[in-house]
Amino acid sequence: MRYSEVTDLKIIPMAEKPTILTQTTVAKSRLFRIEALEIQFSNGELRHYERLARGGSNGAVLVVPMQDRDTVLLIREYSAGTHRYELGLPKGKVDVGESFFEAANRELKEEIGFGAKQLYHLSTFSLAPSYLEHTTEIILAQDLYPEKLLGDEPEELEVVAWQLADINTLLATGECTEARSIAALFMAREYLASLTQ
Amino acid sequence: MRYSEVTDLKIIPMAEKPTILTQTTVAKSRLFRIEALEIQFSNGELRHYERLARGGSNGAVLVVPMQDRDTVLLIREYSAGTHRYELGLPKGKVDVGESFFEAANRELKEEIGFGAKQLYHLSTFSLAPSYLEHTTEIILAQDLYPEKLLGDEPEELEVVAWQLADINTLLATGECTEARSIAALFMAREYLASLTQ
Repeated sequence: MRYSEVTDLKIIPMAEKPTILTQTTVAKSRLFRIEALEIQFSNGELRHYERLARGGSNGAVLVVPMQDRDTVLLIREYSAGTHRYELGLPKGKVDVGESFFEAANRELKEEIGFGAKQLYHLSTFSLAPSYLEHTTEIILAQDLYPEKLLGDEPEELEVVAWQLADINTLLATGECTEARSIAALFMAREYLASLTQ
Repeated sequence: MRYSEVTDLKIIPMAEKPTILTQTTVAKSRLFRIEALEIQFSNGELRHYERLARGGSNGAVLVVPMQDRDTVLLIREYSAGTHRYELGLPKGKVDVGESFFEAANRELKEEIGFGAKQLYHLSTFSLAPSYLEHTTEIILAQDLYPEKLLGDEPEELEVVAWQLADINTLLATGECTEARSIAALFMAREYLASLTQ
C-alpha cells in the first residue's frame, strides 16, 4: 500500500475492527431482510445501525461485454427502483449452484444474445457499504459469440453499442447513472489499455 | 446523443415507460421502508417488484475533496453494511433544509476537518436502480481551508491523501470497493484533466 501522506493531516493508526454485539432481523419482505446491529467500537463507543442484509442471495454479477477491443455493449432496461429506463451494463443475480462466470455468461445470453469465450474477474464492488451488505462481481467478457437464452425479461431489451473511449459522452446523456456501471466501464478501459502498453 | 450502432444488433425503438399500477409498503423499520410495486409494461406484461424506498430522506452527497490539483483526501471508516473498514470518499445524508452543497461542506468539516470554497456538482449517481430508489449527488470540492465540525462519528476517522493519477493502486489495495467512490474518483480525474487541456 502506498499512501502519499500529507504533513498537515493527522494519520491515525488503524483501529481494531468493531464488534457486533447483537444482530436482529427487524423487518422482512419477499426479497429483503433488514437487520438491526448493535456495534461496539474499539474505543468503547456503542452505536445502533440498520442494514439491508443479503438474505438468501448468492451474489450478483455485472458484466462488461466487449464486442471488440473498443466497443462495449450496453442495454437500456427499465429499473423499478428509480422508475426510469437506465442505460447500463448487463447484470443479474447468481443462481444456486452457479459460479460467477456461469452467471455472467447466462445473463449475457439472456440480455444481449451473446455468450463469451473469455471471462475475466475485474473487481468486487460494494454499493453503499454503510447500509447494504450486498456486493457485485465485475466480469469483463470478451470473444463474444451469438447465443440467445430466454430470460424472464418483461420486454425485449435494447442493446446499444458504445465506444469505450467515449465514456464522457455516455455520462452526458443522463441515461447512464448507475455507479456500478460507470465504475466498471472506467476500470475496463484502464485494464484493456494496460494490456496494450 | 451519439450511438455507435452495430449492424448485427437489433436496435429496438424505446418503449413507453411502464405504469405503476399499485404501490404498497410491505415492511418498515426505523430507517428503511420496502415497497411492493405492480408494474405494467407497454406491451401489457405485468411484473411484481420490490424496492427499498427512499423514505423520508432528503438525499445523500458524496464529496471528492481535492487538497491540491493532484491530491484527493480519502477517509477510512467502518461500514456496518459490509462489517469492514472501507477507504473511500466522505459522504453523508442531506439534513432537512440543507442544499447539496451545504451538506457536502458540513460533511467535509465533520469527516476530514476542512471546508471548501469551491464546490461543483459532478453528477448524480444511482446505486442499484433495479431495487433501490436512492440516488447520491457527487460534489467536487476544491480550495480547501481548515475547519473542524463535530459530527456523530463513533471514532476519529483516518484521513488518507492519495494521488488522483494513481486510482489503480488504490483499487489494488482491496480497501476501496465502493462503486460510488470509484466512479466519482474516475469522473473527477477526467473533469480536472479536461480543464487543463
